[in-house]
Amino acid sequence: TSPDDEDTFKILVATDIHLGYLEKDPVRGNDTFVTFNEILDHAQKNEVDFVLLGGDLFHENKPSRKTVHSCLESLRKYCMGDRPVQFEILSDQAVNFHYSKFPWVNYQDENLNISIPVFSIHGNHDDPTGADALCALDILSCAGLVNHFGRSTSVEKIAISPILLRKGRTKIALYGLGSIPDERLYRMFVNKQVTMLRPKEDEDSWFNLFVIHQNRSKHGATNYIPEQFLDDFIDLVVWGHEHECKITPFQNEQQRFYISQPGSSVVTSLSPGEAVKKHIGLLHVKGKKMKMEKIALETVRTFHIEDVVLADHPDLFNPDNPNVTQAIQAFCMEKVELMLDNAERERLGNPHQPEKPIIRLRVDYAGGFEPFSIYRFSQKYMHRVANPKDIIHFFRHRGQKEKKDIDLNFGKLVSRPTEAMTLRVEDLVKQYFQTAEKKVQLSLLTERGMGEAVQEFVDKEEKDAIEELVKFQLEKTQRFLKERRTEAEEEKIDEEVIFFLQLICALCKE
Amino acid sequence: TSPDDEDTFKILVATDIHLGYLEKDPVRGNDTFVTFNEILDHAQKNEVDFVLLGGDLFHENKPSRKTVHSCLESLRKYCMGDRPVQFEILSDQAVNFHYSKFPWVNYQDENLNISIPVFSIHGNHDDPTGADALCALDILSCAGLVNHFGRSTSVEKIAISPILLRKGRTKIALYGLGSIPDERLYRMFVNKQVTMLRPKEDEDSWFNLFVIHQNRSKHGATNYIPEQFLDDFIDLVVWGHEHECKITPFQNEQQRFYISQPGSSVVTSLSPGEAVKKHIGLLHVKGKKMKMEKIALETVRTFHIEDVVLADHPDLFNPDNPNVTQAIQAFCMEKVELMLDNAERERLGNPHQPEKPIIRLRVDYAGGFEPFSIYRFSQKYMHRVANPKDIIHFFRHRGQKEKKDIDLNFGKLVSRPTEAMTLRVEDLVKQYFQTAEKKVQLSLLTERGMGEAVQEFVDKEEKDAIEELVKFQLEKTQRFLKERRTEAEEEKIDEEVIFFLQLICALCKE
Repeated sequence: TSPDDEDTFKILVATDIHLGYLEKDPVRGNDTFVTFNEILDHAQKNEVDFVLLGGDLFHENKPSRKTVHSCLESLRKYCMGDRPVQFEILSDQAVNFHYSKFPWVNYQDENLNISIPVFSIHGNHDDPTGADALCALDILSCAGLVNHFGRSTSVEKIAISPILLRKGRTKIALYGLGSIPDERLYRMFVNKQVTMLRPKEDEDSWFNLFVIHQNRSKHGATNYIPEQFLDDFIDLVVWGHEHECKITPFQNEQQRFYISQPGSSVVTSLSPGEAVKKHIGLLHVKGKKMKMEKIALETVRTFHIEDVVLADHPDLFNPDNPNVTQAIQAFCMEKVELMLDNAERERLGNPHQPEKPIIRLRVDYAGGFEPFSIYRFSQKYMHRVANPKDIIHFFRHRGQKEKKDIDLNFGKLVSRPTEAMTLRVEDLVKQYFQTAEKKVQLSLLTERGMGEAVQEFVDKEEKDAIEELVKFQLEKTQRFLKERRTEAEEEKIDEEVIFFLQLICALCKE
Repeated sequence: TSPDDEDTFKILVATDIHLGYLEKDPVRGNDTFVTFNEILDHAQKNEVDFVLLGGDLFHENKPSRKTVHSCLESLRKYCMGDRPVQFEILSDQAVNFHYSKFPWVNYQDENLNISIPVFSIHGNHDDPTGADALCALDILSCAGLVNHFGRSTSVEKIAISPILLRKGRTKIALYGLGSIPDERLYRMFVNKQVTMLRPKEDEDSWFNLFVIHQNRSKHGATNYIPEQFLDDFIDLVVWGHEHECKITPFQNEQQRFYISQPGSSVVTSLSPGEAVKKHIGLLHVKGKKMKMEKIALETVRTFHIEDVVLADHPDLFNPDNPNVTQAIQAFCMEKVELMLDNAERERLGNPHQPEKPIIRLRVDYAGGFEPFSIYRFSQKYMHRVANPKDIIHFFRHRGQKEKKDIDLNFGKLVSRPTEAMTLRVEDLVKQYFQTAEKKVQLSLLTERGMGEAVQEFVDKEEKDAIEELVKFQLEKTQRFLKERRTEAEEEKIDEEVIFFLQLICALCKE
């Protein structure tokens, strides 16, 4: 494509920054703030026209005072200043920002000296809630530091009005759609209730940029948004929510548009997708042409994940050997040491990059092996790894477990053999949360943690798996309880606690 | 004093705005926001040089998203603009604002167009907490909309550096001290550990203005700050925290300085002090002379409180008459009607003043009378009064109750006669919270509500007073639990819940 000039938009593209993720962790607590500063620093150094964020700027729906404070600090530091903004807005701002108390773009506010406007949709973590339907972005928007757009009011019908931007001879129609529960949006698409409005004049002269925050990969029949649902006239979709970095635009197979999935800028789950190198993008748009320049983030904590299948090493491990557990432990330690070496080699020399890596070794112990004590193993890496407590994850992949029907009778449940029992509880709890989710958005509880937690306890295959699960979940619920506040949510909390207390009671009776 | 001119500072003085107080109340929920707007509107219309706030701008230590949003909206609307600020700062701002990430006064920030700088200390409701010692004001300060000053770091020694302001030939040394637990500050004063630094040159040419947020009236031996503790060189003290409006400066008897107690701008307790007409002040300072102009707030919900002593009307009420309760009820209704008439007459015609008044009739029913059903009485005023549920307050003043020693033996406690019992529980709970307060600041729970709640239950003189108290307190604790989040506070919550559960268990065993 073409060199930067007065007709070229330079847009910094990022998503899922998750400010405040693990903010109380003494080691990882500042990671998100450090990387947010790096991202804004790239924006400033590259003299971008604007920053485009794809949702989940905040990890918590009601971010802590520290997180809001830190975010305001970064935005005020990097996005204010004298460098003039060189594009204009042609659309009706009162329409684009009609939810805001100050329904105009921040850089045109005569009381604010904005050098880098930030445009953001909300994600599922920081979506509007409560009687006033405010979200954390609205605080930034009210403070004049972010332009929150892409909000829809109706739950049945959406018409997306683009923000029309012009720089020299290049015109961008910027469409945004803040996170909506996937099933609901899926239904709206199927029912043809999602309309993207187009500029009346010179329809084909616009570069159509769409930012969305939904499941792109299929999580159940209607629990995602198939790419082909999107309008064919779009040029580029910036897809938030998915954490794996696939930022280089790839063309959809059925339609003409390209998709860029920037991925998160922080590792929030210890899965292979998060181990893919994190990038943000510098999107150049001139006329109808675009180029996505990848910028590797240098302050992201390194993350290495590997799998070991014990049964694949019959030469090394014999389940009948009384010392096999020591052998496994020694083998894992060797693996971890290698991963630590790799992590060290991968460090980029940025003084703000945190030192300790995140390491996860997943050990498939199927085939008659016993897991060793994770506690002791963790102790050894306390000072070398950012996540000593979950460095090892035991699972059993071989001999796939068979799923059965859900059985709500607790009495029966607890009298069954352990494995079937834990499976049933897994289903039961999953089902409970799936139902609950439809009533109140319990995404925090269900999307993260739950699956992993259930897996962990089921994998343990201990006699007291259910009780542990219950306790774990009760603790989770209580933590959750301390985080949310609206009346509807409080009612939900009460329901939840009662549900788990009933579950405990059922167990006690047994 | 003199007319306004280029040598005269005009300062809008207000305190205890308690943004977010009762924000979930469908009737009173917006009161604090409406009045905050009125206050800032007065500041704008009077073209003041700055606004000085005496703490408790926020009612909650962690104000809701709605409250923060609404506050930012008001500040951005009223305090930004082109009118130039006409005073300068002579002191080292890096000292005055050294806790801020942007340690300079907001109106000198070249990226912000501030027309009315707001200077505020924090109160006991919105004091800094948590690992980062941030308070809600710091969010406003980070957004560039408030200048938070008067923070002290040490818990043993305080040296207050004034902000030195000059307008024409008038020079103000502005001292601030954010809220500190009274006992601690009392001790520091007694130990001569509170120093007010003075400008080196022309010491006597400065108007010395001190803003403080502490108990002024005596709540126990050292649980307040005696006026005479303050330095004699001060010219005017603006005293926050006390909600009764005594804004016209009055001279301290021992010392030369004047005190102005602006009082809150919202009724947060149904006591006579809160029924005093609410004002803010327009302080004019020229040279060493000052004038405090009172501005009556027009949007404050009217509040009328009256006392009735049934035993004072032997002609009307005979406790032996079987219909005496109906007679009392009819009498109270008449009283309430008169109060409603008065409230209506008092309305100021401001379209933003809420319509329904707050009404409280305190009925001393000592002398063998029975309280009537508050529920039915309330129902009658549901649509005419803002506080139907607590319109009537029964108490027994005659035959003062005698306080006894604290007894921690629950078994003994519950076997005693009712009155002694409730008194003991009152003391017990008070003592518990006094101890707790020293460990973690539980001011929310202890200062408000608790006293009133205990009184209410003791007054009831019912057999199940203890149990009601326990339930009430447990509910309060749970509400509190849903509001606070730091780890230290969560630990405290657990302690609390356990304490109350133990109390309940003790009762169950009995």
